[in-house]
Amino acid sequence: MAEASGPLIIIGGHEDKENDRLILKEIAERVGDGKLVIATVASHEPEGYFDTYKAAFAALGVTNLVELYVHERGETRDDRFAELMREAAGVFFTGGDQLRISSQIGDTPIERMVREIHNRGGLIAGTSAGASVMSETMLVKGTSSESHRVGDLHMAPGLGLVPDVIIDQHFAERGRIGRLLGAVAQNPRVLGIGIDEDTAIIVEGSRFRVVGAGAVYIVDGSGVTHSNIAEARPERTLSMHDVRLHVLSGGDSFDLDKRCPREPAPAKEKAD
Amino acid sequence: MAEASGPLIIIGGHEDKENDRLILKEIAERVGDGKLVIATVASHEPEGYFDTYKAAFAALGVTNLVELYVHERGETRDDRFAELMREAAGVFFTGGDQLRISSQIGDTPIERMVREIHNRGGLIAGTSAGASVMSETMLVKGTSSESHRVGDLHMAPGLGLVPDVIIDQHFAERGRIGRLLGAVAQNPRVLGIGIDEDTAIIVEGSRFRVVGAGAVYIVDGSGVTHSNIAEARPERTLSMHDVRLHVLSGGDSFDLDKRCPREPAPAKEKAD
Repeated sequence: MAEASGPLIIIGGHEDKENDRLILKEIAERVGDGKLVIATVASHEPEGYFDTYKAAFAALGVTNLVELYVHERGETRDDRFAELMREAAGVFFTGGDQLRISSQIGDTPIERMVREIHNRGGLIAGTSAGASVMSETMLVKGTSSESHRVGDLHMAPGLGLVPDVIIDQHFAERGRIGRLLGAVAQNPRVLGIGIDEDTAIIVEGSRFRVVGAGAVYIVDGSGVTHSNIAEARPERTLSMHDVRLHVLSGGDSFDLDKRCPREPAPAKEKAD
Repeated sequence: MAEASGPLIIIGGHEDKENDRLILKEIAERVGDGKLVIATVASHEPEGYFDTYKAAFAALGVTNLVELYVHERGETRDDRFAELMREAAGVFFTGGDQLRISSQIGDTPIERMVREIHNRGGLIAGTSAGASVMSETMLVKGTSSESHRVGDLHMAPGLGLVPDVIIDQHFAERGRIGRLLGAVAQNPRVLGIGIDEDTAIIVEGSRFRVVGAGAVYIVDGSGVTHSNIAEARPERTLSMHDVRLHVLSGGDSFDLDKRCPREPAPAKEKAD
């Protein structure tokens, strides 16, 4: 990712749309009075999504919103999409099914336009399925609220806007640490990033900052000394020794190149 | 813990009682035709627990079972308990509320008899609440399926049969990694041990081995470089950098003194 590329705002789902709107505010600040494309393509039934975001962003002064939806992959060459995305300041992928995003727009003119917007400094944001699709390889299905079985992971190629990471969302809420560990065990080259609901990472260059109410979990497998992920029996429970784990919360930042967290500057507080 | 002390079998809850009974078998092997005390004291309504275990153990050849229940702390000096526990080969604490175990039998003749059985080489086992109570300090309440808030943890003194650890149970099933991380952040002297359902650790001396269907998570905070657990605002989400995490599954073992996992001897399997 070139330093000149635009920011990415990657949200773990269920971002606050009615109260503080901390995360949507970060989007609003970057879009201003520019055009924001709301891509509801992850959803099989997109009705309502656009109106919800229209209301939430209107309250933050962002009013130039257009909806991008694709019923069938065949439509993606339609000229109206080029018109829709022309000079957009940002694209926001809403939730649903990450496979719907990748299968309907992957390797189409729409995906190329998304990359162009990113490359010329525009904002690309995504929540839930729209977060997962940012990674090179994305988690599609896997165990929640149980420990990982070595044969139980479904992955698929994502849009790859952030290289060398796997992003998972609704993280603590759906008990997904097991499946993220399993994904990283498959190849510790990728860094696992698990994002809670109403929590986001804002990626600029090779760094990101955490915003929102929950936590972001970083699973770094580079020092792993043993794992049984390549075992023949798929029902075997994952075993994985010497994982480095970071729990980040609002204000923390992280260096993706160095795989190293940075805490926020200390606030003046005292114990009692 | 002296090397001569008996084994501890610490179970994450919901151990299989009808099929393979892998974990109950480990108890049966150690008790044989000796007397096994089923302590249902964790439960406010113990009816049914004893009969369930009686049937499950009968199928494994263990038939000399007695029930230990205490309605009120005042009863614990009653002579019948001394008679009940005399020459027991083992004690098994069933599930319920760990605070009920510690508040009703902590610092009573019953607790002293449990320790005596342990010290002379007898088996002490516990599942769910009966697992939590093994640690020096036990988790009583905390967030599940969400990231940890710094002010959101309730701990209490346990029986302390395993020093320097905090044990949590129903671990992956109830999404408890957040609260265990929070507990370890409070003082990284303690090692966090999270045990899944139908999974157990068998502690002998300063080592344990994992048995059962799920995983055991070890949270080692000794290398933590930053945490915000002492922050003044209790609603703040936990931040904790550089945690060492191990995921262990059946056959793995762990050295509690060296804080170091050992994988099982490699089985002859090949990739395809």
